[in-house]
Amino acid sequence: MTQLNQLGIVKRNIVRADKAAVDKLSRFGVATIHEAMGRVGLMKPYMRPVYAGAKMCGTAVTILLQPGDNWMMHVAAEQLQEGDVAVAACTTDNTDGFFGDLLATSFKARGARGLIIDGGVRDVADLEQMDFPVFAKAIHAKGTIKATLGSVNVPVVCAGALVNPGDVVIADVDGVVVVPAAIARQVADAAEKRESFEGEKREKFASGVLGLDLYKMREPLEKAGLKYID
Amino acid sequence: MTQLNQLGIVKRNIVRADKAAVDKLSRFGVATIHEAMGRVGLMKPYMRPVYAGAKMCGTAVTILLQPGDNWMMHVAAEQLQEGDVAVAACTTDNTDGFFGDLLATSFKARGARGLIIDGGVRDVADLEQMDFPVFAKAIHAKGTIKATLGSVNVPVVCAGALVNPGDVVIADVDGVVVVPAAIARQVADAAEKRESFEGEKREKFASGVLGLDLYKMREPLEKAGLKYID
Amino acid sequence: MTQLNQLGIVKRNIVRADKAAVDKLSRFGVATIHEAMGRVGLMKPYMRPVYAGAKMCGTAVTILLQPGDNWMMHVAAEQLQEGDVAVAACTTDNTDGFFGDLLATSFKARGARGLIIDGGVRDVADLEQMDFPVFAKAIHAKGTIKATLGSVNVPVVCAGALVNPGDVVIADVDGVVVVPAAIARQVADAAEKRESFEGEKREKFASGVLGLDLYKMREPLEKAGLKYID
Amino acid sequence: MTQLNQLGIVKRNIVRADKAAVDKLSRFGVATIHEAMGRVGLMKPYMRPVYAGAKMCGTAVTILLQPGDNWMMHVAAEQLQEGDVAVAACTTDNTDGFFGDLLATSFKARGARGLIIDGGVRDVADLEQMDFPVFAKAIHAKGTIKATLGSVNVPVVCAGALVNPGDVVIADVDGVVVVPAAIARQVADAAEKRESFEGEKREKFASGVLGLDLYKMREPLEKAGLKYID
Amino acid sequence: MTQLNQLGIVKRNIVRADKAAVDKLSRFGVATIHEAMGRVGLMKPYMRPVYAGAKMCGTAVTILLQPGDNWMMHVAAEQLQEGDVAVAACTTDNTDGFFGDLLATSFKARGARGLIIDGGVRDVADLEQMDFPVFAKAIHAKGTIKATLGSVNVPVVCAGALVNPGDVVIADVDGVVVVPAAIARQVADAAEKRESFEGEKREKFASGVLGLDLYKMREPLEKAGLKYID
Amino acid sequence: MTQLNQLGIVKRNIVRADKAAVDKLSRFGVATIHEAMGRVGLMKPYMRPVYAGAKMCGTAVTILLQPGDNWMMHVAAEQLQEGDVAVAACTTDNTDGFFGDLLATSFKARGARGLIIDGGVRDVADLEQMDFPVFAKAIHAKGTIKATLGSVNVPVVCAGALVNPGDVVIADVDGVVVVPAAIARQVADAAEKRESFEGEKREKFASGVLGLDLYKMREPLEKAGLKYID
Repeated sequence: MTQLNQLGIVKRNIVRADKAAVDKLSRFGVATIHEAMGRVGLMKPYMRPVYAGAKMCGTAVTILLQPGDNWMMHVAAEQLQEGDVAVAACTTDNTDGFFGDLLATSFKARGARGLIIDGGVRDVADLEQMDFPVFAKAIHAKGTIKATLGSVNVPVVCAGALVNPGDVVIADVDGVVVVPAAIARQVADAAEKRESFEGEKREKFASGVLGLDLYKMREPLEKAGLKYID
Repeated sequence: MTQLNQLGIVKRNIVRADKAAVDKLSRFGVATIHEAMGRVGLMKPYMRPVYAGAKMCGTAVTILLQPGDNWMMHVAAEQLQEGDVAVAACTTDNTDGFFGDLLATSFKARGARGLIIDGGVRDVADLEQMDFPVFAKAIHAKGTIKATLGSVNVPVVCAGALVNPGDVVIADVDGVVVVPAAIARQVADAAEKRESFEGEKREKFASGVLGLDLYKMREPLEKAGLKYID
Repeated sequence: MTQLNQLGIVKRNIVRADKAAVDKLSRFGVATIHEAMGRVGLMKPYMRPVYAGAKMCGTAVTILLQPGDNWMMHVAAEQLQEGDVAVAACTTDNTDGFFGDLLATSFKARGARGLIIDGGVRDVADLEQMDFPVFAKAIHAKGTIKATLGSVNVPVVCAGALVNPGDVVIADVDGVVVVPAAIARQVADAAEKRESFEGEKREKFASGVLGLDLYKMREPLEKAGLKYID
Repeated sequence: MTQLNQLGIVKRNIVRADKAAVDKLSRFGVATIHEAMGRVGLMKPYMRPVYAGAKMCGTAVTILLQPGDNWMMHVAAEQLQEGDVAVAACTTDNTDGFFGDLLATSFKARGARGLIIDGGVRDVADLEQMDFPVFAKAIHAKGTIKATLGSVNVPVVCAGALVNPGDVVIADVDGVVVVPAAIARQVADAAEKRESFEGEKREKFASGVLGLDLYKMREPLEKAGLKYID
Repeated sequence: MTQLNQLGIVKRNIVRADKAAVDKLSRFGVATIHEAMGRVGLMKPYMRPVYAGAKMCGTAVTILLQPGDNWMMHVAAEQLQEGDVAVAACTTDNTDGFFGDLLATSFKARGARGLIIDGGVRDVADLEQMDFPVFAKAIHAKGTIKATLGSVNVPVVCAGALVNPGDVVIADVDGVVVVPAAIARQVADAAEKRESFEGEKREKFASGVLGLDLYKMREPLEKAGLKYID
Repeated sequence: MTQLNQLGIVKRNIVRADKAAVDKLSRFGVATIHEAMGRVGLMKPYMRPVYAGAKMCGTAVTILLQPGDNWMMHVAAEQLQEGDVAVAACTTDNTDGFFGDLLATSFKARGARGLIIDGGVRDVADLEQMDFPVFAKAIHAKGTIKATLGSVNVPVVCAGALVNPGDVVIADVDGVVVVPAAIARQVADAAEKRESFEGEKREKFASGVLGLDLYKMREPLEKAGLKYID
């Protein structure tokens, strides 16, 4: 069994989340999916798109990097398949530019849909031009070396979230959410259900109905002791 | 008298700054107004627009939130009037997503011109599409609950600035400034006066005149001991 | 000899990097130049363009500011020549708005190509409209005074990088790099050489060739102990 | 009327909180007082004692500093009386060393009980030896100048808390809390009452009684849906 | 199966690491154990002892908190056994004071050896006096409520490290390390072995032998291209 | 000539500051020396002693580290002489534990007086017991590798300050200051002179004399427009 953060390992056969569930999840936003999972699964908010409009949804190929070293990025490239998202964690906080236009070209050629990295990237103008979405902690031109082993497809903690290889990762302007492969379908269904109620609510709010009335909050607020004064 | 940060209170009748003063202030930038007030009144620079081009000017309806809880947002909606800006503080540092597209729809239906929040928001793509400007500390999909009382329309400290209900709040790419209602007109006049001098100065600078000469700085610099060497 | 951070000094005659070398360097990105120098010379990644698309390349006129005081900006204006980039450091961490549209107008009239500042700037909408590129630590409307001497054209540490007057400073979306004047030509040549190999590599990656094979990494990875498991 | 952050003002006659209330408050910890006020009034947790064991309780003489400038510290010294605590805010974020052993000697001679500063201090070894307690954002040897006016005894926002001159300020290892002068006695009484229940509770907890039972939480937890699994 | 961060769950029967392995691990420092595990397992360095000298080693009872809410602390108390360490994560970044002297009294009465919390604590003077060690992100007097369900004994991510209930947690001045229960014995043995070599090395270093010679680094350094100049 | 941050270089013969000047500087505090140099030369305030009471004064042997790699520490050990202080910078932000008890034993055996590191250290309990002072950005148990070349005795930027090999580095509770070797004697003299005035001032302040009168500030304050109100 591969362990969290185990070093020197490449796991080749991973169980990717069901394709239909991934496709369905790709229709919803990060906030909706996070709610549909019961308000869990988010990465920390310092993870931001490196260019405006970047977004992605796919199955995780995980990468564990060493600080200032991007050797495992090349090892990971070989494990990427159509529909995957590369998810890179690091054994320590580091904002070096682990990833740039050449690796993006390689990842894209393998069918990857984007990169989530708890570290830095560079060649951001090229990434935008190539339309290869990246969410990162930093943009930094700082180069890296290829000297120390990390791992590919071991469980990793990325920006505060546990990611297992094969999990679904969805990223948009609101952040990044991780859906365990085993519950991808169920979360997709819950997201769909949640979304279906939103349109109606939006119309009501637009017409001037208050949440106080729509959600029947006046009584609980009074019970909690809220006082209106003039 | 409502006190700073008092909990469990909604003040209904607040004295909003004079409408004409607000309209006049809306013509000036945050930097100009801050200078016109004597270099005070700014929120901290971590408050940023959640989408490019967001800006607003209006009278504050203040909201005091509890961490991870947006109940008071719904209470505040009812107090919002045409021309108001919602200003939300929190009893502690928290970046959860207190506000999203549904609340934005509701606030907009009430006539609100935007939201300033010392916390997080989500559904940012929707906010941009709706053209509902928000300045926040973070973008975060993290959902909130509705369980604990805060307050509406009590004085709050938001991003380092004291905001009283009815104060004028102006936000643009340079940040957020708060003008106390009582001096709104006077600050608007001072801003106008300041602005009127800028055009002339800009022309002179554009023609190559130096600030050293325009502001007669050479003598004071020499007195202060500045030495030119080759 | 002018020393690092020496106060109360303006050096008038500085040796600017060779113009041809600057022109050549202007054709390459920050990441490429940083690599061409041997992976040194970068400012810290908190230095960001204040508007999308800002970039610049020129010879440094350095400015040492005091906190909350932009007097030296005006002194520096007189020392700026066609092709220069103003590089401002501060004697302590400070995010006040040291620079706005009027100074930008003045700097531009002098021929400056942009500003790099380890501090704050304001009037960002104007800066963008004027197309005057700025890289800064913060955007902040906070005004400054003119009371205390700093220096112009002494060596400074700006965002973690030593900058001597006359050095070449290149800034783009990936960050800011400083090339000492004495090695500008040699770095430009190395950058050109490096760039010439990139196209070929990019094509190979695009065709699906892996870095593992292109860079012959399989053997060293095995030697380092990498294990593939199923 | 003095306004928040108004510049260039020294208010001489301020209404200090009732001495008996201050004395009573000095017997309780910051956490207890914060609870007794209804969970408000705290400064941000980055405010820390500059030496182990520092603590204080007294009436606020407020100081509004400019970045890198400690002129107002000397102006404030004259306004300090026996039993006061100096509370210094700054018009912007700044960690310079605004305060050291000489000012501490002067403040102590005036009867001040300590300093709360949203900025930096130095000569910390001397401060400890003199037993002059200071809570600060930073320790920094960086010197300051005396060139620009701030104010003394205007309302200020210090580390996120509004402080009016004359308010009671209590600081211990848990942080800093501000009690408005007008409610000092009432808060002291509430703190006393709260404290009186603690001893009994502590004994029960020590004997092995669970909060689940002491506070009768089992039923509400069940209602909220908590599930025990094996 | 309990999932990461699942809400509303208390798992009663957890498999604690072998007692002998825990005892053995308690003899080694965090740095040694981290090395013995292959340089993994550390929490982020912002986790610090709240008083000098705090340290602990025990089996994890995990707690998932909601921001500003310490209800689950009381639920966890009942699950604590002799030799346990409470490990508290939060669904979002929050520094409120979730834990103080009363809970410490309760936890101690249950046999707990300390608390690791990715959040804030208060009553630190009492904690030190009681000799109840705590490692936390912050010290903050801010009170919390009891309104929303989290969980007890589900897997959590705490300060960047995955912690499963029953894992061994060791904390000292160098930080906090987590050893999965399944490999506790093996890691303890590796730590012992590592430690046994240290004494000899220390003597050699003390006698003036260089690491360059002891570790035979001169040749690899030369191969890597290191140049000595005069 | 060795350049800033040049990689792969060890400079053996460096010009250390005059021993008498170093001895004299060792009698003064960091704040005094910083003032004596004209308010320059300080490292950023995040550099803190890793145990209470740590302080040092000596001549710099500089080390340029790569992230997560402490190979150069061993190379540096050989260059250390009696009276030196090791000053370690890194090519990027990194808080790994580059230094622990074994290296401290080696450095001490070579005669080093301490370490200043813009990174992390570990084995802090041992360092304190050995009385080997260290100022660092972080305490972190995270281990490092030995794979990539940095340099020894090239100029480095450490925590915002330029350090040339041979410069005098003084560290105490107020921070870290760097005195260029060439001006060490002159700064020591200026520090002595400055110190000699302090005693007299301290007495006056202790007797109740105000800085307003001692420094004749009343007139300049009035000129600047300060208003006293009641």
